[in-house]
Order: sequence, then C-alpha cells, then structure tokens
Amino acid sequence: MAQTANPTFLRPVCEPEADPGKAITFSTPLALDCGRTLSPFTIAYMTYGTLNAARSNAILICHALTGDQFAASRHPLTGKPGWWDIMVGPGKPIDTDRFFVICTNVIGGCMGSTGPASINPATGKSYGLDFPVVTIGDMVRAQAMLIDALGIEKLLCVTGGSMGGMQVLQWAASYPERVVNAMPIATAARHSAQNIAFHEVGRQAIMADPDWKNGDYGTAQPGKGLAVARMAAHITYLSEAALQRKFGRELQDRDQISFGFGADFQVESYLHHQGMTFVDRFDANSYLYITRAMDYFDLASDYNGVLADAFRNTKARFCLISFTSDWLFPTPENKRIAHALNATAANVSFVEIESDKGHDAFLLDEPEMLQTVRGFLNAAANANGIA
Amino acid sequence: MAQTANPTFLRPVCEPEADPGKAITFSTPLALDCGRTLSPFTIAYMTYGTLNAARSNAILICHALTGDQFAASRHPLTGKPGWWDIMVGPGKPIDTDRFFVICTNVIGGCMGSTGPASINPATGKSYGLDFPVVTIGDMVRAQAMLIDALGIEKLLCVTGGSMGGMQVLQWAASYPERVVNAMPIATAARHSAQNIAFHEVGRQAIMADPDWKNGDYGTAQPGKGLAVARMAAHITYLSEAALQRKFGRELQDRDQISFGFGADFQVESYLHHQGMTFVDRFDANSYLYITRAMDYFDLASDYNGVLADAFRNTKARFCLISFTSDWLFPTPENKRIAHALNATAANVSFVEIESDKGHDAFLLDEPEMLQTVRGFLNAAANANGIA
Repeated sequence: MAQTANPTFLRPVCEPEADPGKAITFSTPLALDCGRTLSPFTIAYMTYGTLNAARSNAILICHALTGDQFAASRHPLTGKPGWWDIMVGPGKPIDTDRFFVICTNVIGGCMGSTGPASINPATGKSYGLDFPVVTIGDMVRAQAMLIDALGIEKLLCVTGGSMGGMQVLQWAASYPERVVNAMPIATAARHSAQNIAFHEVGRQAIMADPDWKNGDYGTAQPGKGLAVARMAAHITYLSEAALQRKFGRELQDRDQISFGFGADFQVESYLHHQGMTFVDRFDANSYLYITRAMDYFDLASDYNGVLADAFRNTKARFCLISFTSDWLFPTPENKRIAHALNATAANVSFVEIESDKGHDAFLLDEPEMLQTVRGFLNAAANANGIA
Repeated sequence: MAQTANPTFLRPVCEPEADPGKAITFSTPLALDCGRTLSPFTIAYMTYGTLNAARSNAILICHALTGDQFAASRHPLTGKPGWWDIMVGPGKPIDTDRFFVICTNVIGGCMGSTGPASINPATGKSYGLDFPVVTIGDMVRAQAMLIDALGIEKLLCVTGGSMGGMQVLQWAASYPERVVNAMPIATAARHSAQNIAFHEVGRQAIMADPDWKNGDYGTAQPGKGLAVARMAAHITYLSEAALQRKFGRELQDRDQISFGFGADFQVESYLHHQGMTFVDRFDANSYLYITRAMDYFDLASDYNGVLADAFRNTKARFCLISFTSDWLFPTPENKRIAHALNATAANVSFVEIESDKGHDAFLLDEPEMLQTVRGFLNAAANANGIA
C-alpha cells in the first residue's frame, strides 16, 4: 500500500501554498456493485485535527456531487476556501480542536481519487468511458478501506449534505457496527424522478458537445456542455425566492435591456460565471459518473424495497436536517428516512430548518444548522468520553 | 396586402390532409419595441367557426412558447391534434359552433409568421440573428394588425396560457377598448428570475451546439442543443408529483439498471423523446427569440413599475386561472395580476385549480379548468347578445 503526498489532479495545482492533501493507493481490488473490480485504486483525502489515542474522535465528512476532499482548506486549483469552511475548523461546529476530521474524494471523482480521468492500467491511457459505473455503495466501500488503512475502527460520526448524505445513509446500512452517530443533511434515500431528469439534461448537454468525443477527450474538456450542465444544476440548488431576492429582474451593467442575447440580466451573468468557473475545476466524465451514481441510489432496493430494513442493525444515533425551501431534496424525502429509522426503533432526531436559500443552504451560514450540528456533536463527544 | 393560402414553413408539410392555414403579408411596417421595423411581415393564422354578422363573436387564442396557430386542428408537420383540442371545437368550452376563433403564429415563430428563418429582404437570405429581438408587445401589435385586416373591431375574448397569458395581459393594456373579456391562464405579468435562468440554460445549450453557427445554420438545425433546451424546459412544465406519479424510478424496457449511460429510467426515455420530437417541429433560432421575448416581459415596467396602471383603461371582464402545482407560473404571480386589477376596480374573478400536473395542466384535461372557461365564455356571450 503506497502513500503519495501529492495526488495527481487533472490539471496543475495552481495554488502552491494550498495543501494538496494525501492519497493512498490500494493494491487490494475494490469490488464494485456492477460486478467489476477496480485495481489498483487511489483514495485522495484530507484530514484536519488530531486522532486521539483511543482513536475514537474521528468524523468522516462525505462530499456532494461537485465537492471534494478540501472541506476546510484552500482548494489547490481555485484557491478558494474549503466548501464547508463555515462548518469545519478550530472552534467551529465540527471542531478540529476536538475531532479528527477525514474527508475523501469519492471514487469516480477528479481530485486525486481514481476516476474516469485516471490511467487505466490495462491500456496506459485514461479510462474515459471504460471506467466502470460506480455507485454510492462503491464510494462508501472505498472509504471504509481508507478508514481501515488509517487504523480507525469506529467513526464517531459520518456526515454530509446532498450526495454526502446518501453516503451517510449507505454507511449506516453497510457498516452498522462502525457508525456511532450519523448526520445526513438535505438528502434522500432514493433519487427522485425529477432529480434523475435534471441529471440527464446535464449529461445530454455534455455528451452533445463534440469536444466530449465519447469520453475520450484527453485534456481538452467539453467545456461548453459541462458549463450548460452546471448552469441547469445550479438553478436547482437555489430556491425561487432566493433567486428573486438575489437577482430579481435586475440588469447587469446596463440601464436598459439590449434587445440581444448577451447577459442582460444579473441572473444570466451569475449562471455564466457558475458555468465557466466549474469547467476550470471539474472533469466532464466525472460529472457523468457521479450524477449516475446518485441516480442509481435507492437504498431500499437492496432490502426488498423496505427502507427500514436497511437500518435494522444500526446502533447509531441519527440527526436528520432538511431545509424548508430545498426543492431538490425536500423535507418529505428526509422525513421518509426518519420514518424508516423510527420503524427500527433507532435513535433519531429530525430538524427542519426554515430557510429561503434552497438546497444550497447546507453549505451556507445557516445559524440553526450550525447550532444543530454543534449540539449534536458535543452530545456525541460527551457520550463517548471525548475530551 | 397579399394573402397566401399556404404559408412557407421551415420544412415540407408532411401531412397533406392537414389544413396549412392562412397567412396575410403586410406591407405596412411593423414598428418594434427595439426601435426597428419589420417590413414586409407575414402573420400565419388559423380560424375556426364563423364570424357573425355583427362581428362580435371573435375570440383570439394566443399560444405559448412552443405553440402555434394550430390550436384545434391537425399539425401540418407532426400530424398531431391541435394543442388545445380539448378546449376548442364544436360543443367544447371554446365552442366553435358559437364563436369565431382566431389563433395566430407569433412574430418570431417558425410556423409561417415572420421569424428568424424568414427571408430578410435586404439580403435575400434567412434573417438568422439579423432578425430583430421582438417582445410580447410586438407580437400583440402584429396580432392587432391582423384583427384589423379581418375587419374585427372588438374581441369578445382574448385568452391563452403561459406566454399566451402574457399576450392576453398585453392586449388588455395596449388595446383596452378592443378587449371585451380577457382570460389569462397560468401566467405572470413579469418573467421571474428562475424562469429567465431556465431560459438562459436552454439558449446556452443551443448556442453551444457547433451546428448553430451563430444562427446561420440554414436548414441543418442545431438539433442536439435544441433537444437539450427542450428537455430542460420540459422538466419545468411538470410538477415533481406528476413526474413521480408518471415515472417514479421505473426502468425502461429492462429489469435491472445497466451500469451505463443509456436511458435506464423511463423518465430519461421520456425526456429524450420530448427533445427529439421537438427538433422535428421547431426552429432553434425561434426558440432563442421567443424565450427572450418572455424574459423581457415585465408589463409594469412600461407604467413606471405600477402594474395597476397597465389596466387603468380596461373595461374588460377578467377571469384568471392558476394551478396549485405550477411552479413555473405559480399562483402568487397570478394573484399579483388580480391585485393590480382590483386596484383599478376592474371586473375580475380568480380561480386556483387543484392539480398535480404542474404548468402543463392548462393543456390537459382538467375538468375544473374546462368548466371555468365554458362558464366564463357562456356568460360573456350572453352578456353580449351572441346566439
């Protein structure tokens, strides 16, 4: 098992001061749900804080579709703060003075973990579409191997929002003895028809781009298609009220409409920016694979359609969080998880937070969310004798 | 003023039995909101029923973004029934035994009215992006010229859903003396930030397609981009509940997921079909222009931001209809119109219909909508002495 200090990203690291993180390459094959194996495979990850002597203070953070391992540190490509900087750090709700925080790039990703841009040992070229279609279960199985490699038996908590929350649920189902507490946020136990539909639009936009070349594009991204995919997705991350409040019908750098097809409206300019900056940091094939993993997620389907059975062996305390204006992973999907947990007599609390910020609320300064996470983790730490 | 029996469509009429409709070409220039004029210009239209001797039984139907003049008759390209076949015909709510129904293809459209695919007399080639950016106001101004040409002074009713409803509101504002009754359905007096955002995604998908060629694509459509635009838009026409009810996570022609990027899910197959069939009947540049007209629509902006002032001269009776699950043109936007009408002491009734079918409900068999339209028009006919 080799460990490299500088995992290979798709593009040169442009922020030399940023910590590029760690990576472990496993020679043990990763068995995938599709029936294939991945070998060798690499998990790139970041850690924050210090593992205590009892190895009992580890918290695993699972990232969302376009997230990565840089939850609480400067992104090595963009130089931006970590995507959960508001949540993770010294004295913050996920307090790195108290907890040892691990965040991995998912299998299929493009920030150092093995994904479609990685070299296929069978050909010596990037996998492209030869990369196997991975699932949330596969992502979690790979994470478990990393946790083993770090010598950690039990995770004090597994948490994450959106696709991160799907991984939390999968962890509780697949490794019930290893998850002491679970905090899935703004998520669902299955991807809805509407969400599959939005993902398919994004994939079609990428695959319609002639630069995609059936996935074999090398270093020349199908940027236009990927930008369109990101723009469409970005609308779903915000609420109608948030878009109205932030942009309304305000014009961008002009007093009057131009009677043209430029970005007259601020909301158009904002979407263009979201699309363009995304292309600079994300791989189009990874976008295809990770959206597919989310579409395929339906935890109950592995348990004859009975979601409660996924949790029958769990001993974890659960804290579920949803947001009133999140129409991508709405409260009823989160409640469905709560009902399944109740049916197995699991220890579960459920918090619906009033917010007009839509799905993105889990990434933002939502005081009630921050307090909920802090309170839940403090109680977890105290119950488990963590200083 | 020349009248042609067979307006020029983009593609050959493939349904020889279908009535291709009528068209009038005007030599009088159409003055546009952008400051330019369009000359000559053609309005393609269909009529159903018979104009009475008093010329008092005319109803103008205004179509939505991707609609056309074939509201109640077979589409000459697709062979499908009219888009409002459920609403318009003998004995139907808009009863062609009693009313003379006119439906025009909007300026900017692609079914015979002058649009970006039409020949620019200055160059002898299709306008492409040289076509002026038109507005809802321009569409209505052109319709008014057609109504003049038909010798009709007053319209018993102007109605339509979605963008059609925008035109209804514009008619009431621009020609208050000519509109006796107005029935805008599932619409808004301004396009919201979220709706502009979805339109911009569609436009970017079209413009990212290399076959678009900056609008100068001749007869070879940028079909992939246009299909992506349609797929994205189509999601917004349905409610999450409707998608769940119709498709859920059901698979398409297979028992198990394929671990690939084909259409595993029925909802994907459905979207692909929507995208592909749309390309066969609609012009990509028209999609750009008509979405832009909707984005620009903000009726109050022509009246110093006071929507009520748009209606200060109206004498029309209004009937507003919205649907509970329509998240594209939600009830609050319709209520905003009702409040403005109330502020001018206009005669207005407002009906919110319980439906899980989303925005598309206005096109579907919604009994309460059909009854509401029938009742409103019967009362209008009786009040105006129409047999």
